[in-house]
Amino acid sequence: MKINHQHYRSIWRDAQSVRIIDQTRLPFAFAVERLHTHEQMCHAIRSMQVRGAPLIGAAAAYGMVLGCQQQADEQTLQNVAAQLLATRPTAVNLAWALQRMLQQLLALPLEQRAQVAWALALAIADEDVAQNQAIGQHGLALIQPLATAHPQRAVNILTHCNAGWLATVDGGTALAPIYAAHDAGLSVHVWVDETRPRNQGASLTAWELAQHGVPHTVISDNAGGHLMQHGQVDMVIVGADRVTRNGDVCNKIGTYLKALAAHDQHIPFYTAVPTPTIDWQLAEGAGIAIEMRDADEVAYMQGQDDQGQLQRLRVIPHESPALNPAFDVTPARLVSGLITERGIVTPQQLPTLEASL
Amino acid sequence: MKINHQHYRSIWRDAQSVRIIDQTRLPFAFAVERLHTHEQMCHAIRSMQVRGAPLIGAAAAYGMVLGCQQQADEQTLQNVAAQLLATRPTAVNLAWALQRMLQQLLALPLEQRAQVAWALALAIADEDVAQNQAIGQHGLALIQPLATAHPQRAVNILTHCNAGWLATVDGGTALAPIYAAHDAGLSVHVWVDETRPRNQGASLTAWELAQHGVPHTVISDNAGGHLMQHGQVDMVIVGADRVTRNGDVCNKIGTYLKALAAHDQHIPFYTAVPTPTIDWQLAEGAGIAIEMRDADEVAYMQGQDDQGQLQRLRVIPHESPALNPAFDVTPARLVSGLITERGIVTPQQLPTLEASL
Repeated sequence: MKINHQHYRSIWRDAQSVRIIDQTRLPFAFAVERLHTHEQMCHAIRSMQVRGAPLIGAAAAYGMVLGCQQQADEQTLQNVAAQLLATRPTAVNLAWALQRMLQQLLALPLEQRAQVAWALALAIADEDVAQNQAIGQHGLALIQPLATAHPQRAVNILTHCNAGWLATVDGGTALAPIYAAHDAGLSVHVWVDETRPRNQGASLTAWELAQHGVPHTVISDNAGGHLMQHGQVDMVIVGADRVTRNGDVCNKIGTYLKALAAHDQHIPFYTAVPTPTIDWQLAEGAGIAIEMRDADEVAYMQGQDDQGQLQRLRVIPHESPALNPAFDVTPARLVSGLITERGIVTPQQLPTLEASL
Repeated sequence: MKINHQHYRSIWRDAQSVRIIDQTRLPFAFAVERLHTHEQMCHAIRSMQVRGAPLIGAAAAYGMVLGCQQQADEQTLQNVAAQLLATRPTAVNLAWALQRMLQQLLALPLEQRAQVAWALALAIADEDVAQNQAIGQHGLALIQPLATAHPQRAVNILTHCNAGWLATVDGGTALAPIYAAHDAGLSVHVWVDETRPRNQGASLTAWELAQHGVPHTVISDNAGGHLMQHGQVDMVIVGADRVTRNGDVCNKIGTYLKALAAHDQHIPFYTAVPTPTIDWQLAEGAGIAIEMRDADEVAYMQGQDDQGQLQRLRVIPHESPALNPAFDVTPARLVSGLITERGIVTPQQLPTLEASL
């Protein structure tokens, strides 16, 4: 990713520590944090300094490395993995990355584990980058015909939450096809859902797109249906925190509403997912545990005051309670297709994809 | 309406001036403003110190009175009406109230106009109150069977934006059935959509319900679909800024998304509308001019800081533009019924209702 024209990943090794971009301070402050222990990584995941299903996977892998550096016996590693697993309940990548790290590390002699752990985590990160590049190219093939059909104007793509560079190690999932199209010289414009309560769209997606020079407009989460009714959306692309065997898509709360509107207005609705985000063990979305986050995320809003300082304001009456489900499940019947690193598949074609993995 | 256990209307006469509650300062400050001129009333409507279709109608009527007090000749009154009409483009009540005031005032001798104007405006306000009481009773008949069906728990009703006391002179439209049910001893619980970008749900509906003691929970606009999928919503009731002949419902942006989810989950979706909100001249919703409001309403968020002061924060990057359509149109096919002061009608029954008026 380009930040002030410089290349970054969202997570990287620095000597015996791990560096992350503190995403809770974007878009108004760009701050890099240094993590030395797996406890610090747990905190970074839980507090959403790092977030996004693919990045959580890589962060968990690096968290295992940090734990492994201190003590590498099986009980310690199992314990570190359990702590990392408990940070966020929804993204399948977390469990996937931890299991892969555990399996590979425990097969090694104790004294080799710490050193090899760095290489294993880097491999998970590099795989993510490669998958996202492939997703970008497959998704580009969906955008190209829309650009050809409307040569006089930009292709309008709506996205929800942040499934961009910042949600991955690099390249993004839902935004990968958009970056690929922009870089290929196609005219694209992105409708960025604000994505309350944590505003990942307004704060992260808008920031990413601005850094890369992609034309975009922020809208409230309420506005997307209206724009679809008025022909101002050609396509929806979102990410996913988990996709089940049948193609149900668990993603940021509010995705289901956009999928309904796209379906009602005959607009293609795609979800961009690297295959590690597909949970082959779960038959359907009803089986996914939906994370309930702190009600204060609804009751308070963070932003920048007139003096340029990050502040938070209360936005609901002190007497009123709030509820904060973090994800919802979009049924497969509303999903036009999944953009994976292996190509584009419909929910019905998932068994074939699984057999090929 | 009860505010700190005292009875209020949202607009009332005070000697030769008009008092309003400044709704831009709720829920953290309760402030009453005094208006002496029609220009002040125009400002109050435009800046949304008073808002909500029925209240805008009454405010426009009182604005005519203030103009009439200064000079009551036809050209002045037409001019005052034109200024008031230009404040907000979507609510049909504005045009309806102005036309009624003009017609009745111009039929009077010049010297009687100012005095009679007060009585005419009060009549419009009183009619609104009476209509809302009737809407409450008709809507109660819809809630009662749900309460009977679920004696062990509260009836869960989702609402969007504010169509309560504060959107009317008193009593509310969408909230009228809820207040009626609560006052009748039924157990009701309200899911309050935050309603970005202006947060009328979080700031006004939650505050109203808290003042009246009705159990409620604030949710982000993204959450309603998920709650409907999980059986946590028994019914949706919203207000309307305008309903067309065919039953299309123009209401706060985001209403269409909730109607889609209710339809998808087989949950009744009702709109509460006094008949003056029905625009018999417009065949369908596509003909409604949708107000585009200032993008800063999306870019900034108002709330209370830790010191108890009202502040605003920027919530999107400085480089990013925003778009702010204020309303959307829910097609009649998604509307279970309209709760009017004349009873409950389906969109198909609207011609019969028109004939009876």
